[in-house]
Amino acid sequence: MLKSKFTGPEEKIRVGSARLEALGDGVFAVAMTLLVLELKVPEWESGVTNALIWEHLKHVAPSFFSFALSFAVLGIMWFAHRMEHVFIGAVNRKLIWLNMLFYGFICLVPFSAALLGRYPDVQLVILIYGANLILAIAFLFWIWSYGTSLPGLREREVPPELRQVINVLFALAPTLYIVAILLSFIEPVWGFYCYLLTPFLYFIPTPIDRYMPAKTGGSKGGTDR
Amino acid sequence: MLKSKFTGPEEKIRVGSARLEALGDGVFAVAMTLLVLELKVPEWESGVTNALIWEHLKHVAPSFFSFALSFAVLGIMWFAHRMEHVFIGAVNRKLIWLNMLFYGFICLVPFSAALLGRYPDVQLVILIYGANLILAIAFLFWIWSYGTSLPGLREREVPPELRQVINVLFALAPTLYIVAILLSFIEPVWGFYCYLLTPFLYFIPTPIDRYMPAKTGGSKGGTDR
Amino acid sequence: MLKSKFTGPEEKIRVGSARLEALGDGVFAVAMTLLVLELKVPEWESGVTNALIWEHLKHVAPSFFSFALSFAVLGIMWFAHRMEHVFIGAVNRKLIWLNMLFYGFICLVPFSAALLGRYPDVQLVILIYGANLILAIAFLFWIWSYGTSLPGLREREVPPELRQVINVLFALAPTLYIVAILLSFIEPVWGFYCYLLTPFLYFIPTPIDRYMPAKTGGSKGGTDR
Amino acid sequence: MLKSKFTGPEEKIRVGSARLEALGDGVFAVAMTLLVLELKVPEWESGVTNALIWEHLKHVAPSFFSFALSFAVLGIMWFAHRMEHVFIGAVNRKLIWLNMLFYGFICLVPFSAALLGRYPDVQLVILIYGANLILAIAFLFWIWSYGTSLPGLREREVPPELRQVINVLFALAPTLYIVAILLSFIEPVWGFYCYLLTPFLYFIPTPIDRYMPAKTGGSKGGTDR
Repeated sequence: MLKSKFTGPEEKIRVGSARLEALGDGVFAVAMTLLVLELKVPEWESGVTNALIWEHLKHVAPSFFSFALSFAVLGIMWFAHRMEHVFIGAVNRKLIWLNMLFYGFICLVPFSAALLGRYPDVQLVILIYGANLILAIAFLFWIWSYGTSLPGLREREVPPELRQVINVLFALAPTLYIVAILLSFIEPVWGFYCYLLTPFLYFIPTPIDRYMPAKTGGSKGGTDR
Repeated sequence: MLKSKFTGPEEKIRVGSARLEALGDGVFAVAMTLLVLELKVPEWESGVTNALIWEHLKHVAPSFFSFALSFAVLGIMWFAHRMEHVFIGAVNRKLIWLNMLFYGFICLVPFSAALLGRYPDVQLVILIYGANLILAIAFLFWIWSYGTSLPGLREREVPPELRQVINVLFALAPTLYIVAILLSFIEPVWGFYCYLLTPFLYFIPTPIDRYMPAKTGGSKGGTDR
Repeated sequence: MLKSKFTGPEEKIRVGSARLEALGDGVFAVAMTLLVLELKVPEWESGVTNALIWEHLKHVAPSFFSFALSFAVLGIMWFAHRMEHVFIGAVNRKLIWLNMLFYGFICLVPFSAALLGRYPDVQLVILIYGANLILAIAFLFWIWSYGTSLPGLREREVPPELRQVINVLFALAPTLYIVAILLSFIEPVWGFYCYLLTPFLYFIPTPIDRYMPAKTGGSKGGTDR
Repeated sequence: MLKSKFTGPEEKIRVGSARLEALGDGVFAVAMTLLVLELKVPEWESGVTNALIWEHLKHVAPSFFSFALSFAVLGIMWFAHRMEHVFIGAVNRKLIWLNMLFYGFICLVPFSAALLGRYPDVQLVILIYGANLILAIAFLFWIWSYGTSLPGLREREVPPELRQVINVLFALAPTLYIVAILLSFIEPVWGFYCYLLTPFLYFIPTPIDRYMPAKTGGSKGGTDR
C-alpha cells in the first residue's frame, strides 16, 4: 500500500505532470468552447427570413473570424504545450506556477477574442489581443526552458538540433503579433488581417515532424502516453 | 529518469494520443453541457402559474428538440471518435490538426443548435446546421482514413470487412443531412423533422457490434484503455 | 506497435470504459459549475450598501438552496456512477448509449435547477425537477443492471449481498422524489422542502462502505484505478 | 477478465482516487475559465475609439483584479489538492463527500469573485468572498487530515516534519482572510487590497519544495503519476 517511506529531505518525491496537464486540457477545452458564446443568436420574435439571418451573419462576420483565429491560436498553444510535456514529466512549485500563469492567459483569450470580434478596427483592441497572446507564449517558453533544464523534471533529453528549431518556432508567433500591433498604428484593421494570417504558418512542416511517425519509417525512439 | 536519448531524426518518438483524446473529451463535455444554456428560464416577477410555465415550455419546444437532437448527434460523433482511437494510438502534426479542426466544428454545434432551436422554419438555418455537421463528419473521416493508414500511428490493424461497414456508416449521416437540406428548399421545417430522425438510425445494430462484448461469447481479441 | 490483429468476428476487442468515464467526469464538472451561473450578481450603478446586497441575497435565497441541493444531487449521482464503474470496465454500443442518455439528463439539471430556484412554489416546476432526476436515476440503474450482467463488460463480480443493498439505494431517491411530487399537489413549496431533505439520506452509512477502507481493517480485495 | 472475486465484507476493495481527482480537475478548469465571463465586453454600435475602450477598462479594473486574484487563489487550492493526493490514493464515502463539499465551494468562487469585482467597497461582499475561501480551505484541510490518517486511503506516509509545515501553510491563508474581513469593518476596500496581497505569500519557497526536484540533487524517493 505504501509505495515509499521517506523521512529526510534527501529523498525526493517525483510529482508527475499528468494532473497538471489534465487541468490544462480542461482549461483549453473550456476556453475553446466558450469562444462560441460570442457567436450570439439574435432573438427575433417573428418575420425571420433567410435575408435577415444572412444580414446578421454578415454583420457578425468579424466575430466568426475571431472565433476561427482564436480557436486556431489555442490549438497551436495546446500543441506546443503537449509537445513540451513529452520532454517534461514531473513538476515542482515553480513549474506549477509557470503553468498556472500560462493557463491564466489562456483563460483570458475568450475575453480578448470577444473584444477583437466586435471592434476589429480599434487600435487598442489589436494591442490587447496581441499582448494576451504574447504573454501566454512567454510563459509557455519559460515552462519549456525551465522544465527541460532540470534533470529532476525532464522526461527525456531534448536533441540539441531540435532545441534550435523550437526556439525559432517560439519566436515566430510573437514577432508576427508585434508586426500586427505595429501595423495597427497605421490602420487598426490591418493588424486584424495580420493576425488572421498567423495560424497558417503553423501548417508548414518543421524538422520536429521528422521525429514523429510519418508516411515512411518506423519507431525506434521512446514512447509518450 | 530519462526514458530515451535520441540524437538523430532516424529515432522517432511515439507521441501517444491520450492527451489529444482527453482534450476532445473536454470539448465534447463542454459543448454538450453548453447546449442547455439555450433552454432559458424566463424571469417573471410574480403571478407565475402552471399555465404560464406550460405556455413557455410549448413556446420553446423547438429548442428542446434541438437540444435532444444535438446532444444525440454529439453523442454519435463522440462514439465514432472514441472507436477511431481504438485503432489510432499515436499522433503527429497532421493528425493533431485534423483533430483540432474536428473539435472546432464540434464547438460550433451549440451555436448552430441555438439557431435551429429558435428558427427551425428558416431555410438558411437548416443549411447552416447541416453544413456544420457535414464538415465535422468530413474531418472525422479524414482522421480515420489518415490515422489508420500510417503504421506509426496505428494501434491495431483494422479488419478489412470492418472497414467497409465503417465507410457506409460514415456516408449515412451526411447523406441524410443532404436530404434534410434539399427538403428544406421545399418546406424549411421538413428539414428540421428530417434531422430529428437521424439519431435513431444509429441505434440499429451494425457488424461492428459483433467485435465488442455482447450477451454471448468471450473476449479473445485485444484490449483498449 | 500493433497490439493485436483480428480477422474474424470471433475475436472480440475489449473497449475499456476509461474514456466514457472521462467524458462523464467532464459533463458532471461542467454541469456542477454551470449551476453557479444561476446565482446572478445584480448590476447596480451606485449606492450599493450592505443592506442592498443583503436584500438581494434574501430575494435569491431559493436559488442558493437549489444550487446546494442540485450540487449534492449531482454529487450523489457521480458517486453512484463512479461505484458502478468499479464493477463495469468495458463498453459496447448499448452501454455507451445508456451512458449518453444518463449524461443527457445530467446536462438538463442546470435548467431544472434554475427553474426550481426561481419558481419553487409552482407545482409544474416541482414535477419537472423530479422527473429530470428520476429519469437520470432510471438510466443509471439500467447501466448498472445491464453492465454487470454481461461477463464481457464486467470488471469484477458483484457480491450478491451487495446487489440487494444497491437495489434499495437505487429505489430510495426516486421514492422520495415521487413523495415530493405528490406533496406538491397539496402545496407546491412542500415538494421543494422535501427535495431539500433527500441529500441528507445519503450521508447515512450503508453496508457498501464496509467494502471500502475505514478506520480499521486492511485491504485484501481488488484495486480500481 | 475478472480481476477479483470477493464474497465477504472482510475482503475490501480499494477504490482509487483517480476519477475523483479528474472530476476536481474539471471543476477547477471550468471555475477558472468561468471567471473570465465577468470581464464583459460592452456592446457599442458605433464610434468606438481607443479612449472609449480605455475608459471602459478603467471602469472594470476591479473585475480584472478580482479575476487575477481568484485565478491565483484557485491555482493555490488546486496545487494544495494535487499535493494532498500525492499522499492520498484511495477513497471511501466520507472522503468523496469531503471532496464534493470542497468542490462545491470552488464552484461558488466565480459568484463570489463577480460580487467582489463589482462591489469591492461593500463590506458584506468582502465578508462573503472571505467566507467562501475559508470554507473551501476548511474542507481541504479536512480531506488532508482524514485522508492521511487512514492506512487504507494513504498512498504514502507523510514525513512528520512536513506535517507541521503543512499545518502552518493551511493556517496562513484563512488568517489573512480573517484579517481582510476585520479590515473591511474599518474601510471595506482595505479588505479588497488585503486579499490582493495573499497570493504573493505562496510564491515564497517552503520546506515542502525540498522534497520535489530542484536545481540540484537527484530523485531517490517515490513517484506519483
